[in-house]
Amino acid sequence: MLYSKLFSKSLKNVKKYDSLNATLLQKGGFIDQVMAGVYSYLPLGLRVLRKIEHIVRSEMDAIGGQEILMPVLHPKKNWEKTNRWDNMDILFKLKGAGDKDFALGPTHEEIVTPLAQKMVFSYKDLPVVVYQIQDKFRNEPRAKSGILRGREFIMKDMYSFHTSEKDMDVFYEQVERAYETIWQRLGIDKITLKTYASGGSFSKYSHEYQTLCDTGEDIIYICDKCNVAINKEIVSEHKACIQCGNKDLTEKKAIEAGNIFKLKTKFSDAFNFKFTDKDGKEKGVEMGCFGLGVTRVMGILAECFNDDKGLIWPESVSPYKVHLIGLNLEDEEIKQKTFDVYEKLQSAGVDVLFDDRENMSAGEKFADADLVGITWRAVSSKRTGDKIEVKKRRDAEGKLMPIQDLLKMVAD
Amino acid sequence: MLYSKLFSKSLKNVKKYDSLNATLLQKGGFIDQVMAGVYSYLPLGLRVLRKIEHIVRSEMDAIGGQEILMPVLHPKKNWEKTNRWDNMDILFKLKGAGDKDFALGPTHEEIVTPLAQKMVFSYKDLPVVVYQIQDKFRNEPRAKSGILRGREFIMKDMYSFHTSEKDMDVFYEQVERAYETIWQRLGIDKITLKTYASGGSFSKYSHEYQTLCDTGEDIIYICDKCNVAINKEIVSEHKACIQCGNKDLTEKKAIEAGNIFKLKTKFSDAFNFKFTDKDGKEKGVEMGCFGLGVTRVMGILAECFNDDKGLIWPESVSPYKVHLIGLNLEDEEIKQKTFDVYEKLQSAGVDVLFDDRENMSAGEKFADADLVGITWRAVSSKRTGDKIEVKKRRDAEGKLMPIQDLLKMVAD
Repeated sequence: MLYSKLFSKSLKNVKKYDSLNATLLQKGGFIDQVMAGVYSYLPLGLRVLRKIEHIVRSEMDAIGGQEILMPVLHPKKNWEKTNRWDNMDILFKLKGAGDKDFALGPTHEEIVTPLAQKMVFSYKDLPVVVYQIQDKFRNEPRAKSGILRGREFIMKDMYSFHTSEKDMDVFYEQVERAYETIWQRLGIDKITLKTYASGGSFSKYSHEYQTLCDTGEDIIYICDKCNVAINKEIVSEHKACIQCGNKDLTEKKAIEAGNIFKLKTKFSDAFNFKFTDKDGKEKGVEMGCFGLGVTRVMGILAECFNDDKGLIWPESVSPYKVHLIGLNLEDEEIKQKTFDVYEKLQSAGVDVLFDDRENMSAGEKFADADLVGITWRAVSSKRTGDKIEVKKRRDAEGKLMPIQDLLKMVAD
Repeated sequence: MLYSKLFSKSLKNVKKYDSLNATLLQKGGFIDQVMAGVYSYLPLGLRVLRKIEHIVRSEMDAIGGQEILMPVLHPKKNWEKTNRWDNMDILFKLKGAGDKDFALGPTHEEIVTPLAQKMVFSYKDLPVVVYQIQDKFRNEPRAKSGILRGREFIMKDMYSFHTSEKDMDVFYEQVERAYETIWQRLGIDKITLKTYASGGSFSKYSHEYQTLCDTGEDIIYICDKCNVAINKEIVSEHKACIQCGNKDLTEKKAIEAGNIFKLKTKFSDAFNFKFTDKDGKEKGVEMGCFGLGVTRVMGILAECFNDDKGLIWPESVSPYKVHLIGLNLEDEEIKQKTFDVYEKLQSAGVDVLFDDRENMSAGEKFADADLVGITWRAVSSKRTGDKIEVKKRRDAEGKLMPIQDLLKMVAD
């Protein structure tokens, strides 16, 4: 992609937004705030989002999740059945033609449960696991954390259906491993902790995945003895580590990246969703729910990986792999050489953003590259001769090398 | 994919839905009606949708479209600026916390215009083209055409920005060619006609792409002399072909698959979106809008390509390329042979849906395959020996062949 043609230029002088992630992502040209809590994703931002989605999707597929797509508009009657129409503050409600009542889905138990009920009859149809990557809505009174807590946001929500709690438990552990792999692929495994949280009315505990971050709005507690993480709600109740009883807990700020729940038969009961077991008896279907905030993860990466010059994307979700900067492009020979580098990278299947703007200083181009935060920066100029200067966004110093050496490092 | 594990089984005895497409797609296990005009897309349906999206996306990218993602929730003030808040019947409106008014976007001129305004300053920034593939909403009083006219649906909407009408015209023709390529890749180019439609308040004509179909709800007129297609509105006004004046027009039923508009400066004026031209003068930005109904195209394909046994997908969007049917799987040797075929196809990178269900008659499996409508059917059984019987969904008779021959025909 030629930077000169890119729709979303980076902007040096944007106002300060409601959060670090919004400010950095607006500056880099990744998102545009339509109103508080509602954003457009620009070409660079959408590329990051799609790479995050790809990682999440591949790990959900790997544990047998089948992708579906459920709607945003939900009928009121489904939410009445689960007793949540009047009991969920953040539920957006609206009226359509003919005085029909709809909700905008903040979660999809109300849709997926009656759907699975049409497909599952006996123990032979179980377990079954479906998921979607889809737009969700929350009627937030104050949306002030950029894309970390939007009125509209994208989530991966997965729902599993089982014959027994035991079968549910086995799958729950598979999901834990899949989530660990996702954090690893996103480069946040070292700072993302499985954290004990309340199980709500239906289960003893659920788990949150909390990413440690100084700008986080959640508080978690880490047990100095057994290294377990526990959320605020649980600590207020137990005043100690729930695993070893230790009262020396270290307080940390964090952002919730995902949460996983055992729902037992709460929702299957609400819809009278039963299956016939091996013994011929009708039983309630055990359910699990596994959330992961896709736009939120993008926000977390922005909050965690940056410096005073801009964003620093993990390579797995970097909008492009290489940010090629052409200097002295007014010189025809150098221009030709630099376009050759661009084509060589593209022919090797490498994503490249090529800053082809003429009559612009090195300093301005470097500053833009730092704002955008692409993993590899390659500079071609009069000074670099028949080589290019390569540096990673994190590094201070670049290194002159032949184009072949860069290709070896970045080609998949 | 093993059919025995597939979440969405085909259903022989579904009720008759509000349209042929809804009935066929429900029977085949592609979609599930949540309420009138609102559907979930099940694993098979989502695969078709993603293949349609892939075709549309690649053709929009090829003409320089840059993909973005705008939100569903729109602020009231943007719709007031264009004078459409009170003048669009199908606009869904809702109130959020703090008495804020929102619309659910049925189209995105109100969002994309002020967005482009932040990126475009001079003639050097033009032309620029952005598009999205995104969820749209219409407050339909009666939604009764399956996924052809939903309350919630997926569209590709592209917006272009130009310095002059002339530049707009050049791009408009590029889009026409891109749309023709899309219809061709979807197998509906022979039956999809560019149709003159009203240009609204801002342009003389716009164009609809109308797919001829006996179950269509639109009426179009084809000029017997110059073969131009004209929509009902234009014919009511002109009583003749607008190109040659001929009054012998043939009436046909059709379904609108897309529409393209020149918007002139209607929306840029509403937002006071100007650019500085070469001559240093401020001018209004010329805009174009190019829609294509993605879920609607899926409905059109279902309406157009079927027989009394079920769906017949064009190969380019067939949910899987091969529907492998294993018969006599109770026999261990045949089971082994058939699983080998399944693995060979998968190793060659061929999408396969494998009906691995045991103790089920050939008739039942064939009927399910016909309902689902995958392009290639391959049968492995006691009778087929070390070969397989291959037939296309449209053909009456199959042909025995070695597995290698099938691989040659279906591998990409």
